[in-house]
Amino acid sequence: MIDELGRRARHAAGQLRSATAAAKNAALEMAADRLEEATPTILEANEADMVRARDDGVTGALLDRQLLNPDRVRGMADGLRVVAALTDPVGSTTAGWTLPNGVKVARVRVPLGVVAVIYEARPNVTADAGGLCLKAGNAAILRGSSFTLASNMAIADVMRSAVAAAGLPADAIQIVEDTSRQGAKALMTAREHIDLLVPRGGPSLIAAMEADATVPFVVDGAGNCHVYVDEHADLSKAEAIVLNAKTHRPGVCNAAETLLVHRAVADEFVPTMARTLGDAGVEIRGDDTARHLVPEMKAANDDDWETEYLDLIMAVRVVDSVDQAAEHVNKYGTGHTEAIVTERIDAADRFVAATDSAVVMVNASTRFTDGGEFGFGAEIGNSTQKLHVRGPMGLEALTSERYILTGDGQVRS
Amino acid sequence: MIDELGRRARHAAGQLRSATAAAKNAALEMAADRLEEATPTILEANEADMVRARDDGVTGALLDRQLLNPDRVRGMADGLRVVAALTDPVGSTTAGWTLPNGVKVARVRVPLGVVAVIYEARPNVTADAGGLCLKAGNAAILRGSSFTLASNMAIADVMRSAVAAAGLPADAIQIVEDTSRQGAKALMTAREHIDLLVPRGGPSLIAAMEADATVPFVVDGAGNCHVYVDEHADLSKAEAIVLNAKTHRPGVCNAAETLLVHRAVADEFVPTMARTLGDAGVEIRGDDTARHLVPEMKAANDDDWETEYLDLIMAVRVVDSVDQAAEHVNKYGTGHTEAIVTERIDAADRFVAATDSAVVMVNASTRFTDGGEFGFGAEIGNSTQKLHVRGPMGLEALTSERYILTGDGQVRS
Repeated sequence: MIDELGRRARHAAGQLRSATAAAKNAALEMAADRLEEATPTILEANEADMVRARDDGVTGALLDRQLLNPDRVRGMADGLRVVAALTDPVGSTTAGWTLPNGVKVARVRVPLGVVAVIYEARPNVTADAGGLCLKAGNAAILRGSSFTLASNMAIADVMRSAVAAAGLPADAIQIVEDTSRQGAKALMTAREHIDLLVPRGGPSLIAAMEADATVPFVVDGAGNCHVYVDEHADLSKAEAIVLNAKTHRPGVCNAAETLLVHRAVADEFVPTMARTLGDAGVEIRGDDTARHLVPEMKAANDDDWETEYLDLIMAVRVVDSVDQAAEHVNKYGTGHTEAIVTERIDAADRFVAATDSAVVMVNASTRFTDGGEFGFGAEIGNSTQKLHVRGPMGLEALTSERYILTGDGQVRS
Repeated sequence: MIDELGRRARHAAGQLRSATAAAKNAALEMAADRLEEATPTILEANEADMVRARDDGVTGALLDRQLLNPDRVRGMADGLRVVAALTDPVGSTTAGWTLPNGVKVARVRVPLGVVAVIYEARPNVTADAGGLCLKAGNAAILRGSSFTLASNMAIADVMRSAVAAAGLPADAIQIVEDTSRQGAKALMTAREHIDLLVPRGGPSLIAAMEADATVPFVVDGAGNCHVYVDEHADLSKAEAIVLNAKTHRPGVCNAAETLLVHRAVADEFVPTMARTLGDAGVEIRGDDTARHLVPEMKAANDDDWETEYLDLIMAVRVVDSVDQAAEHVNKYGTGHTEAIVTERIDAADRFVAATDSAVVMVNASTRFTDGGEFGFGAEIGNSTQKLHVRGPMGLEALTSERYILTGDGQVRS
């Protein structure tokens, strides 16, 4: 099964490698138009998925996440138009020089080839991930949830027809119909077929990939993000940043989970911040020092330091120094995003150097770790690993680089 | 065992992360001097290794490869001095921009953290790999062969003393003493301890990593390299390039293994090239067309197209077009290096676009795929994978990038 998909994808990738931006953009624009036109067909498929999911006992937010309606189909189409408008990363020369013997060296950005995406019961990811892979010149193998298979197939059918109409191979977008666990494992180990596996799911998917995957993959890991308020912080900036980092959108990976406060400003800052957060509906769990300052605060235990709440809960700890703050971050953090609030250059430099996360904010909210905020136009995810790409992943994360050397007969002596 | 090494390495990496280039260079220079001073100790350890290897039946080139003598120790020392003289990749800003809200974004090159290297019975790799990892600010975990354990330990001891004398953590360089198969597997799966695993060995090591490794690794794969002589080639350039690519150093990965010749020039080129290669001691194995032109040529079979001879043997095939040449390359190649010889821009562009190898040469020898030739100063290996780094790997391959965002209180709205 995966062998057949893989062969088709590899063949399509060979054609996509030299597809022009114009052809790829035409395919994306046409896919957007055709998705809107096909709304009745897509909603019919989605209704079948919804029935199946309800029969299986799916409810609430999970069920809502897989629901499509005309607005959401339009949202997918608009997403594809945004991707069409992005600059094509393929073909840019990222470095170039001339060897002493006159051979010219160019390092050129190229598609990766075949990109597989594993995702949860969110049919919009089919359009989103398929569109991004296509824009970067890759053939996509998309494996969603069994609960959204009909929706995913309907969306992919429309996109495949648009890709073909633009003169590109329809197999640029393929759906894995085997949504079993064995199917996932087969995908994760298909080294000959897959150049990159992108996970768009929760911790259990990442854990499965870390345990089983032998294909190259990126880790889009958890965000246990920290804000450290230094002894030399402007406390009004600190208050705004902590409030924003915690409450602006608590359910996402770049929300802050733990607040670290320098002892020298704890007396003043902890009670104020506790009030502000409390007013915003945030439950606070503190260490002994923090609870001494705000006695009604719940006690934090070791689990709290490790937890990505993704909720209106924040852990608070009082520390003695920048180094102790960094030590806490390095012990409990997930390498996603940390922030320091300070007016002093030496403290900022020390915090940046002593931590090892993908992104460090100096006097800014952790919420800025985002492909859109970074100006990438689209986001495939956020890498918390160190190889290939780190931090917000835009289209470039779906590309590779190769070298083209041009001479006029040079040989090595 | 690996847990203890891993913890020490992680701790050392934390200190190395902000080590200055001056400190790292001082450590490398001192290590070079002390290696030369310690020559008697190192040779004594090596003699013990040699006795053990001989007792185990190791002979010939394999035995010679693990032999040290004063010249070879001096070679290691000089290698470290070369690395000391290279520009430190850590700390360079690789991209930077300002968000609409005034937050400044900098993408900065940083060490990876802990780099493990698995290598064969070549004690010089201990100094070489240890030095490169140190220069890039990483802690190295080095696992050589059981046959060279005493030599590796002796070399590492000297380097550790030099690193400590330079005020850096001695655990920047550690040797894995467990050289068993289980030990290798433990290293390949120690995700919490290792940020990058670099193989310096043959196909069986790469195969083991592809099957077992769950830590991030680079593939330093085989080089089944091709030279395609186009119908519009300057045949004198072609002759020089093929001869150089095949015979300059046949035992290395960037040597050419298969020659593809366009039918239009085959009558003229194949006999000439066969003579030239024959004079250089190269055995040629051809397809039917080539053998029709040079009847004394041996017949090539499918195995020949797939084989990295690493020897004075070359397979020859006559093709009908650039596309057929590219098709052959994509079917049998290993993604390392290919060359086209042609005077026409359209043929060169087509060959470059239709192949997918890390490096393509236009009118130059495949032998230029090399960190030294590229001007990287040192080479960790040559990547035939697509993630992280592709082609010759210099110091940058041992680094990652992270984002530092600097604001004055910005929050997300």
